[in-house]
Amino acid sequence: MPANTPRNYLDATRGYGAEINLCPDIRSAFAETARLQQEGRVLVHPFDDIFVAAGQGTVGLEILEDLPGVTRVYVSIGGGGFIGGVAAAIRMIKPQTTIIGVETRGADAMSQALAAGAPVELPAITSIARTLGAPKVSEFTFRMVRELVEEVIVVEDRAAAQALFFILERTKQLTEPASSCCLAAAELQREKLRKDDQVVIVLCGGNVSSEDLAGFHAHFMA
Amino acid sequence: MPANTPRNYLDATRGYGAEINLCPDIRSAFAETARLQQEGRVLVHPFDDIFVAAGQGTVGLEILEDLPGVTRVYVSIGGGGFIGGVAAAIRMIKPQTTIIGVETRGADAMSQALAAGAPVELPAITSIARTLGAPKVSEFTFRMVRELVEEVIVVEDRAAAQALFFILERTKQLTEPASSCCLAAAELQREKLRKDDQVVIVLCGGNVSSEDLAGFHAHFMA
Repeated sequence: MPANTPRNYLDATRGYGAEINLCPDIRSAFAETARLQQEGRVLVHPFDDIFVAAGQGTVGLEILEDLPGVTRVYVSIGGGGFIGGVAAAIRMIKPQTTIIGVETRGADAMSQALAAGAPVELPAITSIARTLGAPKVSEFTFRMVRELVEEVIVVEDRAAAQALFFILERTKQLTEPASSCCLAAAELQREKLRKDDQVVIVLCGGNVSSEDLAGFHAHFMA
Repeated sequence: MPANTPRNYLDATRGYGAEINLCPDIRSAFAETARLQQEGRVLVHPFDDIFVAAGQGTVGLEILEDLPGVTRVYVSIGGGGFIGGVAAAIRMIKPQTTIIGVETRGADAMSQALAAGAPVELPAITSIARTLGAPKVSEFTFRMVRELVEEVIVVEDRAAAQALFFILERTKQLTEPASSCCLAAAELQREKLRKDDQVVIVLCGGNVSSEDLAGFHAHFMA
């Protein structure tokens, strides 16, 4: 894991029995996984793997089961595997469903790839949505998103943080900015929504430490 | 409602369509309810009502349904109606279950009543667990707790706040100090617990505003 991994990730991962190799940054962490692979370990890639995307796509099946009338789904994009799987599953069964991708400013590798026509490497991840911080999407996820996702929206950190606290107060559920940005995106599109739209916002994680939360409040809410 | 009611309570209550009369403090709020009763309104008392306690007791039935082997249940005490109902329901069906009441220092009207042998009026509520802040328990709830609850534990605000953030990080669930104090109490009793104990901690609310949360972090976690 990169050295800037939140303390609570480390605690929880160790709590499940894992041994963690901390690397200076995400690039060196990926290099370390390559080295471990050569030693015979199996890499479970966080996004650039068709089986991982297929597994994550079962979230799409659950959405269709719970809300067959769904018309619009907001999903955040880190490396793009999760949205690729969810979009593939939903549009296979209900092709008229609109899938919207969401990134935060400073962690927008997919938006920049779409603008450039190919994956580009971000010089640095500057968003609070650290788990969206893939420095570069893959050819595989780029193609999935270009084919299956209607548009990718970039929201500001402030909007993601405000959505986080709204969700926390009203639903008592802790999300991370990489999740809550989907609500912020839906709010940006409020005028686009039709009265009969059935909107799903996928809140895919809540890995925020108490310190992070206090910091978000001080920076964005005070 | 008393004037120190958290903003998010007011927002949520208004959001459900209520009209709120704000009074300077909880005593004047109760006086206002008495006045409204004389005008013909119906008072739904927060704790001093056998029907309210009976309704809240259904939480006890749910606990027995979900965990028939339960041996020990931690429930916080505001005015004492909730714990009274839960304890009555559980002990009617499974009398050997131990019910532990929990208060925070500065909102410990029931502990003080038990020590004095009768309900006593607290001069002020000084705990962060504002929803435990009944200034005085009633004869009805005092009797229920004395007969059905094994002991009432008082925990410090700091321990309640730390338990709140632990629950938030690990379960992604927002609780208020008036709930999380039950986990803090169970931790205090760690040595009392037997290996085969099946412990339930009732987390009965999460009415904490983002500002409160940031304040708790600054005071108790930093």
